[in-house]
Amino acid sequence: MENFKRFLFFVCAAAVVGSLSIIFVLIWVLHYKEGLAWDGGAAEFNWHPVLMVAGFIFLQGTAIIIFRLPWTWACNKLVMKWIHASLHLSAFTLAVISTVAVFDFHNSAKIPNMYSLHSWLGLIAVVLYCLQIVVGVFLYLVPITPVPWRAAFMPFHVFFGTLLFVGVIAVALMGITEKLIFSLKSPKYSESPPEGIFVNVLGVLLVVFGALVVFTATRVPWKRPNDQVLHTLHTNEGGDDNVKAGPSLSQQLSDNADADADATDVRRRISKLDETN
Amino acid sequence: MENFKRFLFFVCAAAVVGSLSIIFVLIWVLHYKEGLAWDGGAAEFNWHPVLMVAGFIFLQGTAIIIFRLPWTWACNKLVMKWIHASLHLSAFTLAVISTVAVFDFHNSAKIPNMYSLHSWLGLIAVVLYCLQIVVGVFLYLVPITPVPWRAAFMPFHVFFGTLLFVGVIAVALMGITEKLIFSLKSPKYSESPPEGIFVNVLGVLLVVFGALVVFTATRVPWKRPNDQVLHTLHTNEGGDDNVKAGPSLSQQLSDNADADADATDVRRRISKLDETN
Repeated sequence: MENFKRFLFFVCAAAVVGSLSIIFVLIWVLHYKEGLAWDGGAAEFNWHPVLMVAGFIFLQGTAIIIFRLPWTWACNKLVMKWIHASLHLSAFTLAVISTVAVFDFHNSAKIPNMYSLHSWLGLIAVVLYCLQIVVGVFLYLVPITPVPWRAAFMPFHVFFGTLLFVGVIAVALMGITEKLIFSLKSPKYSESPPEGIFVNVLGVLLVVFGALVVFTATRVPWKRPNDQVLHTLHTNEGGDDNVKAGPSLSQQLSDNADADADATDVRRRISKLDETN
Repeated sequence: MENFKRFLFFVCAAAVVGSLSIIFVLIWVLHYKEGLAWDGGAAEFNWHPVLMVAGFIFLQGTAIIIFRLPWTWACNKLVMKWIHASLHLSAFTLAVISTVAVFDFHNSAKIPNMYSLHSWLGLIAVVLYCLQIVVGVFLYLVPITPVPWRAAFMPFHVFFGTLLFVGVIAVALMGITEKLIFSLKSPKYSESPPEGIFVNVLGVLLVVFGALVVFTATRVPWKRPNDQVLHTLHTNEGGDDNVKAGPSLSQQLSDNADADADATDVRRRISKLDETN
């Protein structure tokens, strides 16, 4: 891997900032708020931020960069796909439980559901995330899907996955804003009480975590070697729009060892091209 | 250009959704709110959402995809860079005026400044955007910068530019949430009054606009042809991390015609590689 130290710095930074976010959200609900319970009250609501941060954001981020970890490159790609899918499924499950918690709390407290922009975009994100998982499983885990389809849809799978991850963080920031305005009364949010400042820092941590994950995931030289080959062929052949490139892509998808050799070959050839220009 | 009709659809959709967002924010402040003025009151605050949507979001989005429009590919790259920089500078100017409007309003109404997560992230975004413009001008418009540096920093320039664009939309969504909670009193936001629903739709439009712009900007086959070549060399040579690739990149940066020919050449060679596998 190129610039392994830099990669390591980014992955470690993401792990530290992500873990810090979870610690911050736990301190928020356990120290500043009513703690955690499943009683229809405020303590049940508190599962909402905890599960969203630890599940929908941290686990989703982990699922996104799992293919980038060079220690996993020796593993069978199918095993890695299952781990990737399982992490996303866990994130989705926690997001659903988290959503149930907030609906329960609202219903007990006679607060209307689904009126705010946060709730609209949050529900849209959960539904689209579910759809992304279903489509992902059928395209990349069920063996009946034609391999050219897999290659053709990969850029869209990656784009929508990243978009959803970023979107979920944006929705979390809106949720933090709502909760601080509603719950801080004396002193009010506008008087910058310690809780307000503390949770603002949590928001900043979530943004930094998102930026680190997306940066790590989108750096082409840090991709799993056979994915680098796929990327090269996509970008130079029109890839996702050019299904006729499929058959040879399929051979590479089905054989990691060959694909790794191809990666070296593509690099060598482009290197020569560069030298001759 | 590959899939020109699909590209046209995405660009037109972005233009329509972006324009709709501006119309929505104008209806919000002119019909539902106090209109526009520069008097330190609520009407001055209203410049904040209007200029943020029309300037910081719509103009910034336009600046991002301007290089993708094939009608501009015949133009000199330097001219296009100036247009790109001017659009970003206009977006920044409007963002600053918009920020002044909200500070003025807060000071007149004795509302504290800079206590909310929206204000923290908003100010961070404005400062980083300014920094991005300054660095961008020195790297890509001032002729003293060594060309290998330009090539080496390009992926970071693109990544941080996209990150800032997405970040600004997230901050806008938080701002909408704040404003609706604070300003809707009778009926309250939770009672879903027409204004609440209308502005929620504005929020959804901003998310769709962001998604369309980022999708259009990140599709490699839609890049300006010489940028496609650069992307190929980056992704296969480690590009931004491998400065020794600089000298030949510099030749391509300085000569659009050669670079276009190179694009065809790279495609042909990779196509051959694909066929032989």
